Parts: sequence; C-alpha cells; structure tokens
Amino acid sequence: MNELELIRKLAPLLPTNDKVIAGIGDDCAVLDLGLPDDFILLKTDSIVEGIHFTRESLPEKVGHKALARALSDIAAMGGTPTAALVTLALPRPFDADYVEQVYQGMAALARRFDLAISGGETTTNPERLLLSIAVLGTVQKNHWASRAGARAGDAIFVTGHLGGSLSGKHLDFEPRLAEGRWLVGQFQIHAMIDLSDGLASDLRHLMDGSGLGAELNKSSIPVSREAKRKARQESSSRPPLLAALTDGEDFELLFTVASRDAVPLLDAWKQQFPGTPLTCIGRMTAEPGLRLRDKHGTHPFTGHGYVHFS
Amino acid sequence: MNELELIRKLAPLLPTNDKVIAGIGDDCAVLDLGLPDDFILLKTDSIVEGIHFTRESLPEKVGHKALARALSDIAAMGGTPTAALVTLALPRPFDADYVEQVYQGMAALARRFDLAISGGETTTNPERLLLSIAVLGTVQKNHWASRAGARAGDAIFVTGHLGGSLSGKHLDFEPRLAEGRWLVGQFQIHAMIDLSDGLASDLRHLMDGSGLGAELNKSSIPVSREAKRKARQESSSRPPLLAALTDGEDFELLFTVASRDAVPLLDAWKQQFPGTPLTCIGRMTAEPGLRLRDKHGTHPFTGHGYVHFS
Repeated sequence: MNELELIRKLAPLLPTNDKVIAGIGDDCAVLDLGLPDDFILLKTDSIVEGIHFTRESLPEKVGHKALARALSDIAAMGGTPTAALVTLALPRPFDADYVEQVYQGMAALARRFDLAISGGETTTNPERLLLSIAVLGTVQKNHWASRAGARAGDAIFVTGHLGGSLSGKHLDFEPRLAEGRWLVGQFQIHAMIDLSDGLASDLRHLMDGSGLGAELNKSSIPVSREAKRKARQESSSRPPLLAALTDGEDFELLFTVASRDAVPLLDAWKQQFPGTPLTCIGRMTAEPGLRLRDKHGTHPFTGHGYVHFS
Repeated sequence: MNELELIRKLAPLLPTNDKVIAGIGDDCAVLDLGLPDDFILLKTDSIVEGIHFTRESLPEKVGHKALARALSDIAAMGGTPTAALVTLALPRPFDADYVEQVYQGMAALARRFDLAISGGETTTNPERLLLSIAVLGTVQKNHWASRAGARAGDAIFVTGHLGGSLSGKHLDFEPRLAEGRWLVGQFQIHAMIDLSDGLASDLRHLMDGSGLGAELNKSSIPVSREAKRKARQESSSRPPLLAALTDGEDFELLFTVASRDAVPLLDAWKQQFPGTPLTCIGRMTAEPGLRLRDKHGTHPFTGHGYVHFS
C-alpha cells in the first residue's frame, strides 16, 4: 500500500464538525470560527533530512524551505499567513550552530511576510533532522480558492517556469503569497493549487476535485532553463517537457478561470507582476483524463510515463 | 548544549507580530484574530517511536496519546479544541493496519470532544514512526490562564494522582478539557500548566513565569498507586514521593489561585467533578526556589535530585 492509498483508507475514519468548511483534500483546512469577513486557514508541512534536503544543504535554506512550503499552501488558497509553530525533531547528536542557522533562514522569510513564529516544540528523532511547520492564516470568505471549483472550458494558468527544481530552486523559492491574494481578489479563480508533486500530478488534483479532464498545449508549457540545461548536460535525464510535467517542488501556482477572463487576467497580471511569468497552458474539459495537444493532435498523458513522448 | 539551552538561544531570533498575545514559553500560542469574545489557540505536539511509545504499544493508544498530549495543552489554557491536523512520518516499510489503528485511536478521542481532524500530511521518516499533531482551539478573552500570572501567597492545586505514568497512564490519560474550562470560567485562575515534565519541573515553569518561589507540603502531594506499587515491587525504583515530584507525563492540571479562593474552589470542584481528586499541595512564595515542607521544617528541592530525601 502506498501513501496515497493509505490516506484514502484513513480519511473516512476522521471526524469533522460544523466549523470545517474544507478539510482533507485541499491545500489547507478552512475553518469558520465566526470572524465576520474571514475564514481561518490551517496547514502543516514537514521536511525530512535525506528526503527533502541533505546534511550538505545550507541550513538557512533548509529553514527557508521548511516554512516556504507551508506558506505556498496558504498562497494557493489566496490567504495571508498570521503565525507559525515549528516542530524540531533533532538527531542525536545535533549541531546547535546548524540548527540556529536553520532558524535564521525561517525567521528571515517569516519577517518578509510579517508572520510570527510563536513557538513550537523540540523532540528527538535519533537518526535525522525533521522539521514540521504549522501555519495559521486567514482568507476572505468571498475570495478564496479551493481545488474543487474548476469548470469545463476554464483556461488553465501557471506561474513561473517548471521543472528542474531540485537543482536549487526547491531550497530558495519564494511562496507566491502576494500573487495568490491578488488573483482571488481581482478575478473569480475557480480552482487553485500550488505545484508540489509536479504539474501533471497536481493538475490531476484539480481535475479530480471538479470531476473534469484537461488538455494542455505542449508548446505552451513554460519549461525552466534548469530542465533544459539538465537535458542537454546529463544524458540520463528526461526530456525537458517531461521534467516540466512531472518534476516536483516547483511551488508555482496552478489555477483555472473562465475563458472570458483569460485575456483580461493576463493583461492585469503583466501590470501587477511584470517580473513573473504567467502562462495559459490549456483548458479544462468535460472529457475525463489528461491530454497533451501538439500540431499532430492530442495524446493521453497517463501517470508519470508518457507513451508517445517526443 | 541541551534542548532547553537551544530553545533559549533560538527564541530571540523569532519574529512576532501584533496578533500574538502569548507565544514562546506558554502551553499554546494565543492569537487575537479579531473575534469579539475569543482568542485563537495554536499548539503542536509530537511523539516518536522508541521515545514516547514503542513498537509494542497498542496502536489505538499511540494515536490516543498523540492527540491527548496536544489537547492537554489546550486544557491548560482553559480552552476548547476545534480542529486538528495530523503529520504522519512513516517508517519504511510501514504497517498499514497498525497506522489505521493509530488513526482509530485518535478519531475516537477527537469525537468525544467534537474535534475535527481536518487532514494533515504523510511523509517518510525511514527508521521510526513519528506523529505530530497541530491543534487549533479557542479560549474566552477574559477567561484564560497563562503560565505567568501566579502571585505570592497563591494556593497551588493539582488534579489527580502523580507519578508512575509510564506504567500505563501515559498512553490512555484523558485530557482535562472540561476541568480546565470550568476552572477558568468559575474562578480567577492566576496561572495554569499541564504536567508533562513532572510536578517539580512544571511548577518551576509557573515560578519562572511569575518570578516567584513555591513551597509544597510533602504530605499533601497526591502520590499515585502506581508510584507506590513500583516502589514496593521494584528495588531499583525511586521513593514514591520522588516519583510524584519528578516522573513525567502525568498530564494533570497544576494551577494557582488566591488563597481566599482555595476553600470555595475545593467545595465547588467536589460538586462538579466528584470522581476527580483535586489537592491543595502548597503555596507560591516571594522567596525564590522550590522547597518541601514536612513536620521538621522546609528543605530545598533542586533539579531532579533531592538531597535529603526520606
């Protein structure tokens, strides 16, 4: 049984209550605690030595990444982070200077977003460092995005460039908080998610959330320089387009809007975020499944293996 | 450097903001998000295989303990839990049935307190299972207890019986949520904490929080049957009173009230919670340090080693 199957098995066991607006299956838990204009967002995310970073990773970047990942989920709802708690599971022995630099990386990022780090706890995890971050935030009740609201015909957008994040970006990306908030404030964002598992996987979450399929224009997918460079330099690496579709940890925003909003959105975005690419990569379809379109037609894209990749 | 020294070094690095009412150094983070009557509470707590439980521990009890620990901190503020997220760091390989039973233990406890478990995440921690729980709750703005409000002359109370928790109670204790809420609602609780590190250590947190000392009546400390049984049956174990003072994981409530409230509180408690012991064990003092009083006078109690223990 893999982790996804395990989650599917566990989810029905878990109780809910009348405060929960959205829970399992979205980027954050969304709670109505009685604030007049806002819902509360709650998110946890953890990184583990040897899996999400190595002992050789710069500690400031490890701290940055731990917090940035959780903030990226707040961004994907269109929310604003308020306070975070840090769970620090320390190996035996631990290097206090390294840990201090991890915290400096977290603190520097938190300060840029006026986020408080209000404590947490330390425990022991003998073999390896594990950091878990809990973030509480808020989002406007009438301006937030779930994974589940896409409609057939919606234009699909993605920020930034995709693929090759493990060459470095995964340790120092900026969570797209300003962008997420602006998007839900200015346009009717039907569905949004941050890219952590890779474009194809995360798009499937939007498809599943809405009972739809999607068609992507192969030539529109914004492939990163890193993915292209790796394909050139490392014979073992995958084609750059496949990297852009399946590499994890891009932490860009993927969202859908009504097709009539696509052009106004692109125009307004260029004014607001001139340094950040935004690309329309395809559309949501009533027909299920994920397909890639090129000049020869459409091909199904299943799992992480693309049969007719060229 | 031990963990406490590390925390002292890290705490000044961490940013705060105008939403934070209380943070590092209290049982929960206390946040003002603009609710008219309530503050928001946020708490994380984790348990690690081989440290807080073993592979032989019943999985339902492991799940129960993971959640109950975090709820005990909500109880120590006088709060009410609303929703929790579960971080599940799974060993390789993992036993899906074991994990399902862990979740059943958590879910059963959550249901008793109308607490939602609104998701979380899974990750990999190759050598051992680690569970981290984030709980969000609320507490009335004019009825909550911090660790920092004790006054000289205050009566010190503790619920339940102390010591010997590792014989079993640590895996199936009930968080004292109803008791904590009733206490802050009915009386002016000057300071409160839940006992996780042991009476002497946790009382020191209240002393440090208020710049005071404390004097405990040796004969009043409610020693558990387990601590007495262990002292009788295991020649290596410590005297029962020392166990009650220094054993961790009691998860009882320790609090202080003005001395004039002591008798009315005890009377009202007996009406409200007839099955749960509540004991006045001593008083807060202007003189610093922790002392034990018996018929021969007072003795200082330092660290976990009591020089004149008898």
